[in-house]
Amino acid sequence: MKIGILGTGIVGKTIAAKLIELGHEVTLGTRDVAGKLAETAPDFYGNPPFNVWHAQHQQIKLATFTEAAAHGELVFNATNGGATLEALKSAQETNLNGKVLIDIANPLDFSHGMPPTLLVCNTDSLGEQIQRAFPLARVVKTLNTISAPVMVNPRQLAGGEHTMFVCGNDAGAKTQVNEILQDWFGWKYVIDLGDISVARGMEMYLPLWLRLMGALGSPMINVKVVK
Amino acid sequence: MKIGILGTGIVGKTIAAKLIELGHEVTLGTRDVAGKLAETAPDFYGNPPFNVWHAQHQQIKLATFTEAAAHGELVFNATNGGATLEALKSAQETNLNGKVLIDIANPLDFSHGMPPTLLVCNTDSLGEQIQRAFPLARVVKTLNTISAPVMVNPRQLAGGEHTMFVCGNDAGAKTQVNEILQDWFGWKYVIDLGDISVARGMEMYLPLWLRLMGALGSPMINVKVVK
Repeated sequence: MKIGILGTGIVGKTIAAKLIELGHEVTLGTRDVAGKLAETAPDFYGNPPFNVWHAQHQQIKLATFTEAAAHGELVFNATNGGATLEALKSAQETNLNGKVLIDIANPLDFSHGMPPTLLVCNTDSLGEQIQRAFPLARVVKTLNTISAPVMVNPRQLAGGEHTMFVCGNDAGAKTQVNEILQDWFGWKYVIDLGDISVARGMEMYLPLWLRLMGALGSPMINVKVVK
Repeated sequence: MKIGILGTGIVGKTIAAKLIELGHEVTLGTRDVAGKLAETAPDFYGNPPFNVWHAQHQQIKLATFTEAAAHGELVFNATNGGATLEALKSAQETNLNGKVLIDIANPLDFSHGMPPTLLVCNTDSLGEQIQRAFPLARVVKTLNTISAPVMVNPRQLAGGEHTMFVCGNDAGAKTQVNEILQDWFGWKYVIDLGDISVARGMEMYLPLWLRLMGALGSPMINVKVVK
């Protein structure tokens, strides 16, 4: 399948690497292709610069947001939440219309120090902002509640005995995303929580997740819903 | 132990009933004692009026917020989040100073319909507001992430294989609350997430919890943290 991934951070790279391993054609979109390839410093988290990773993943094409979205029959939003709407605008609405858009971003605001606050919450969410700005995109919010390595390999954590959530307005899109989560990535438990307004709850969970990560000393954590 | 519980809703009643079962002396505080006892209509959730329950739990004394707080060597805040600060003011600061104050309330705002939003979040929380307003109270936030029956009997749900969180500024108070959760109520897994500012995350989890309750069709749910 042709897949576009917007964002070249750890989430975008992790999803991209998993998807080519599964045999898909992946284009990774970024704001400034030449600039991204020219980076020589480690990123914010101390990971090697992009080109080091790219040399090990040469099947993945690096392109503009527009080209990545145009390439994808399916599009992942793995951009920084604060830059998401700008990135999607740059990707162009016509390249998103009618497509399943998997939104993994969190609207985190690091400008006031750690732990970050949210740029939008309570009465709105990034997921809803995206759906409103691109009404013909079939937005499904998921995977934003865990760290990148767990997204594509949940069974490395507690044998996969933990839960992923999805929400969105388009039932068909959620069915497709559910299959991707279960069949491609190996999730055992996926709960459909409802329409895109549930993105509020999924994004507002982040402050708790960040404190859990701090208390347990690892980002390799998740929750299992029990009933 | 002498324990004061502020709030006569389902949370206050459930905790009170458990505590007398354990042999403690419980006073339940309310704004208007005569009015509460005179109620004849079922409550918001369809539970019988207070006096029906009280007739079955006669060892529990109903009193004012002031009297309940004065009675308690330990105080539970089980009031409605929107009314908590007023209730605690009515309980009087001198009756809270130096005491462990277990804050279970959530600042839910039902005025805009369902699901509720939060009255305070992101850069502040009810837990922090309480600690700021009553600086000598030893506030510990806990139990706000589940429904009342699970609070005092976690093992009825998935054999107790799920997690409770605590936060607060006073290490000794958290140790005592941890013992209450484990030894009195039967919690297997309690995670100390840090100082009272973690109340933001614990309260901001509610929108997700409410959607989970809707999706799973039951309030008898919780999450187990896996790592």
